[in-house]
Amino acid sequence: MIPTLEWLPTGVNFLDQTKLPLEETYVLATDYKQVATVIRDMIVRGAPAIGVSAAMGVAIGIQRSQATSLAELTKEVAEIDAHLAATRPTAVNLFWGIAEIRNLYNNLAAKNTPISEIKEAVVARARQMYDEDIAACKQMGANGASLLPKQGTVLTHCNAGALATCGYGSALGVIRAAIEAGHKIDVFADETRPFLQGARLTAWELMKDNIPTTVLCDNMAASLMYQGKIQAVIVGADRIAANGDVANKIGTYGVAILAKEHGIPFYVAAPWSTIDIKTAHGGLIPIEQRSALEVTHSNGKQMTPDGVGIENPAFDVTPAKYVTAIITERGVLTGPYNESIQAFASADTTQPALVEA
Amino acid sequence: MIPTLEWLPTGVNFLDQTKLPLEETYVLATDYKQVATVIRDMIVRGAPAIGVSAAMGVAIGIQRSQATSLAELTKEVAEIDAHLAATRPTAVNLFWGIAEIRNLYNNLAAKNTPISEIKEAVVARARQMYDEDIAACKQMGANGASLLPKQGTVLTHCNAGALATCGYGSALGVIRAAIEAGHKIDVFADETRPFLQGARLTAWELMKDNIPTTVLCDNMAASLMYQGKIQAVIVGADRIAANGDVANKIGTYGVAILAKEHGIPFYVAAPWSTIDIKTAHGGLIPIEQRSALEVTHSNGKQMTPDGVGIENPAFDVTPAKYVTAIITERGVLTGPYNESIQAFASADTTQPALVEA
Repeated sequence: MIPTLEWLPTGVNFLDQTKLPLEETYVLATDYKQVATVIRDMIVRGAPAIGVSAAMGVAIGIQRSQATSLAELTKEVAEIDAHLAATRPTAVNLFWGIAEIRNLYNNLAAKNTPISEIKEAVVARARQMYDEDIAACKQMGANGASLLPKQGTVLTHCNAGALATCGYGSALGVIRAAIEAGHKIDVFADETRPFLQGARLTAWELMKDNIPTTVLCDNMAASLMYQGKIQAVIVGADRIAANGDVANKIGTYGVAILAKEHGIPFYVAAPWSTIDIKTAHGGLIPIEQRSALEVTHSNGKQMTPDGVGIENPAFDVTPAKYVTAIITERGVLTGPYNESIQAFASADTTQPALVEA
Repeated sequence: MIPTLEWLPTGVNFLDQTKLPLEETYVLATDYKQVATVIRDMIVRGAPAIGVSAAMGVAIGIQRSQATSLAELTKEVAEIDAHLAATRPTAVNLFWGIAEIRNLYNNLAAKNTPISEIKEAVVARARQMYDEDIAACKQMGANGASLLPKQGTVLTHCNAGALATCGYGSALGVIRAAIEAGHKIDVFADETRPFLQGARLTAWELMKDNIPTTVLCDNMAASLMYQGKIQAVIVGADRIAANGDVANKIGTYGVAILAKEHGIPFYVAAPWSTIDIKTAHGGLIPIEQRSALEVTHSNGKQMTPDGVGIENPAFDVTPAKYVTAIITERGVLTGPYNESIQAFASADTTQPALVEA
């Protein structure tokens, strides 16, 4: 079990993903501001993990509050929400995670529930979301495993693994499930500039599971596809619009085009909480721009000349037409996604289907 | 004038491209083995620059020889050739540069030319090749400038600039010529993992010329194309097969697919010496595999977990069908390239057309 994040009596404990793969160290966040910092600085990252971290952030904020009246606490909850919501704009799971706890809080507060009971309830719900996230990953694995080749190499981009969730992973969860079902799968991991989530995180967690893994620079995938060395692509998502457009780590869109050009299926695996039915299409998804320093510097050394312009969008949008299927815990969606997403949303809008343990 | 390489009385002086952009230092090669090391270690790189460097390597080997008979010298020339030819396999210019001097040597030796005269002649020819390379770049610029937009952003990959030639550049030479002709061009430079020729070298030399330049990670180009921010792509080449397939820096093939998908023209600029009419198609071009350390380590720090597999091909092959036009000093070639290359080759098989100064 990879300890991405964990609720402890002392706070929320995060595996520091900025230090992997060489150092396995932890950051204990003891208040909601520290949780926000952990999210913003990418000590924890990955849309599902961000969602649960944000929920735990709101929960710890409420739990540690010194407020003596509901009016006072309600005001604090608004501050806590706003502070956590300002960390990273693209992953809808962040807002979903915050909303889950806030809505529970609002319901309980509306009933004048005693503060001590509210504190217990929000912590219990945040911890439940953690369990649900792992269950959703397992169910995505069960739903998607048969899509992957019986034998072959699967390319993934960024890290949509145990480290991007509370455990098991979305895209890497499908790979794990396929391997558990007897498929012989090697993984190609795009290194994923500039933050190197593939080289550092995907490689680290797959090596821990003894899954054969090869790291490549992002610009090498096309050539490997041309040589017939890649049989499928599977990635995660940070937000999926109502029409099936997929926001994911920068570079995903390019990989999707390459897959199409070579006749390789391109799968997206994400929990239902990543689907944002209120956003009509990908053009409406806000794309986070990160610091130029991530591109200009490498391990503290400047790699570009002074004064040069820098692009550093953290995400891109892959139009739905490039997506062979979207694997969720509710089932496998195929195009036209406007219809399939609507159908699955209507079927159950409140709770993910849970896999039997 | 960017001093990529220079013949000096004391040896061949190379700008150390591994130290750019932060340090402008030089390596003086005083014998042919040092020239080979400079090529292998990528202190000098770029197909045209490698070609002239190799010619100078053979010339300095002959010049510094202690041989007292032609028989002895001929044996040494074979050793010099083999040593330089073993440095980098993909760029055909390397073999062309060696062959130019060796053929001259063979002709002179067959006529029993005195050794002192041979030494003078091979050095003179190597220095002439340097001048011809710059002239060819200027002519490529003149031939290709009108293909670039009157106003817009041009994406380039790796470095096909002054630093990849004896001066002015192939792909960047066309950009420079277009700007000199009044076009308003901004450059997007792919950083070009793992060696970062784009971030370090293209950005450095364009900033020196005050050409507006923005560096992006290789995986960001697709998204920028989708947003309409790129009007043309231009790259160099390390070897062009008789059918127009283009071997160039790893990642070029992916960029070509992205350009096609977005309806953006994809140009290749290369001197005629890069066209290898003896190689029928790109599948026959040897692709250099470089050390895994270039991918696993960054400024001395390990970025990947121990034991993970690594891919590090230095080049890929872009099939001719993705290439809008090939810009050479002899003219602009379009498909079908089998025919256009043959036509241009027949027109003049010995000397590049030189631009008027």
